[in-house]
Amino acid sequence: MKTEQLTLGIDIGGTNTALAFVDREGGIIAKDIIPTNAMDPAADLFKRLFNKAGKIFEGLVKKNYELAGIGIGAPNANYYKGTIENPPNLNWGMVNVKEIVKQYYDLPVAVTNDANAAALGEMRFGVAKGMKNFIQITLGTGLGSGIVVNGELLYGSDGFAGEMGHITIVRDGRKCACGKRGCLETYVSAPGIKRTVFELLAESTDKSKLREASFEGLTSKNIYDAAITGDKIALAAFKLTGKYLGQAMADAVAFLSPEAFVIFGGLAKAGDLLLQPAQKHLEANLLKVFSGKIKILESGLPEGDAAVLGASALIWHELSVNKD
Amino acid sequence: MKTEQLTLGIDIGGTNTALAFVDREGGIIAKDIIPTNAMDPAADLFKRLFNKAGKIFEGLVKKNYELAGIGIGAPNANYYKGTIENPPNLNWGMVNVKEIVKQYYDLPVAVTNDANAAALGEMRFGVAKGMKNFIQITLGTGLGSGIVVNGELLYGSDGFAGEMGHITIVRDGRKCACGKRGCLETYVSAPGIKRTVFELLAESTDKSKLREASFEGLTSKNIYDAAITGDKIALAAFKLTGKYLGQAMADAVAFLSPEAFVIFGGLAKAGDLLLQPAQKHLEANLLKVFSGKIKILESGLPEGDAAVLGASALIWHELSVNKD
Repeated sequence: MKTEQLTLGIDIGGTNTALAFVDREGGIIAKDIIPTNAMDPAADLFKRLFNKAGKIFEGLVKKNYELAGIGIGAPNANYYKGTIENPPNLNWGMVNVKEIVKQYYDLPVAVTNDANAAALGEMRFGVAKGMKNFIQITLGTGLGSGIVVNGELLYGSDGFAGEMGHITIVRDGRKCACGKRGCLETYVSAPGIKRTVFELLAESTDKSKLREASFEGLTSKNIYDAAITGDKIALAAFKLTGKYLGQAMADAVAFLSPEAFVIFGGLAKAGDLLLQPAQKHLEANLLKVFSGKIKILESGLPEGDAAVLGASALIWHELSVNKD
Repeated sequence: MKTEQLTLGIDIGGTNTALAFVDREGGIIAKDIIPTNAMDPAADLFKRLFNKAGKIFEGLVKKNYELAGIGIGAPNANYYKGTIENPPNLNWGMVNVKEIVKQYYDLPVAVTNDANAAALGEMRFGVAKGMKNFIQITLGTGLGSGIVVNGELLYGSDGFAGEMGHITIVRDGRKCACGKRGCLETYVSAPGIKRTVFELLAESTDKSKLREASFEGLTSKNIYDAAITGDKIALAAFKLTGKYLGQAMADAVAFLSPEAFVIFGGLAKAGDLLLQPAQKHLEANLLKVFSGKIKILESGLPEGDAAVLGASALIWHELSVNKD
């Protein structure tokens, strides 16, 4: 019986860490989730993680699977150095992930930030299959982006390229957690649309069921639910959010000339409410040479699995590049 | 006697077309300039061009030089297709340059736009030697940019990446020749700083020798000359121009994480008058992870030869990549 290769995709989050054994076509053969325990050292997480993975894999070996490599997606991960550096929600400081993994497995390992992993996931298993130049945008508590140029992730000189969430979309605009003002993610993200709603509630006198919510209590899901019932404030908030997104995309196109943007994450589920104004303002701000050429696509990956699929795609990609 | 290889670098401009035979180290062995005759067909220019080049090369063959390839820089040139498409100052329409050249030489030919050629020139012969990720900015009648990622020019999905002159730096700002508003090049270019001077002359009551100039009569050289004698309006114009440049650079860094910006062209000769405010506003708008890392360098290439050196670098680059 012939063996089939799998990779282990790992997504390290502030609360949970997900793992999945994934085949070459993006099929998830087995998966699990463990708590990250953010206040404990990284070594502790990896011990529990590989203990769990090892047990799962015992069953897979019997079915003639073999493990070809390990891909890891995490916030603040540096592909070049194989490190995770001061991740925002983990009490880790600087951790050399590749070295830790080597204590458990003598296999190819690759590490990248979650947004980059998501881009590779779309390229290998999702709507960006066959594309060589595209930009993946993840809309969640922030705006993450992974840029693919000529079939490869764009890392730049120090591994930190692709920070589209921190281009300035409104000069001297809203305060960002990064310390700057007017960053795209202060407008286009789950908290961003909430801030827009609160601005609109302050500015306008329109009735809105969103007037009953506290800032802490309001979610982007609430805003979506209000919008589809015709709530004016909610609709205006999506329009504005889409406008900022489209304007920023136009600048991204001027730099990068991508074939498409792939949109993923909670806020992306609003679909046309967000993407129609985005497309409109993208087109309005494009150089003529790009007119009508740039697609905006919704991610094709199942939300719960996208991060581990991305991490798996990262190492599948490494394995195929190194084979060539 | 051993033969030494040369490339032929050609820079096609609206008024003149320059050619140079360039060795592997960027030494110009011979060069000439002919009028472009912008209203005549492209075939006519190439006939005169290769007639001239052929005569020069007869002399070089005797010195045991051989021609290895031909690189061409021109506005609106498309690297992928080998074409020049509706160049702004030439009555050409769409021209397949590679095909025309093949009628004269059975040699490798590459074509790219002038900004991209300039970037390759800096990487091979200038201040960007050894860099893998940088952005070349040419400040002239517009703002041209060539982006190098991982040692290769960034072309994007259709060959038109690197249009930094057309990102929006002021929303609903100045009208641009491209049809949009607020494009970076309407502020940061020779005409851009002139427009800024006229805004400042209108806004302020400061005395300035620039009040004697007409819009048509004023040049960026006049503004520079006024600035170094302490003219307040001229100094303020450079500060503002540098500010816009620095702000735009910060967004470029968020996308691309370059090691450096290389600044070239007439306006760049203002040196610190422009580059000090640019550096200041670049730093002020950077994500912390990039702080203090990004260099702003003045081009090291002689202005008159930079374009043909860039065109030559393009084909040297192709030859070395294809050899590997």
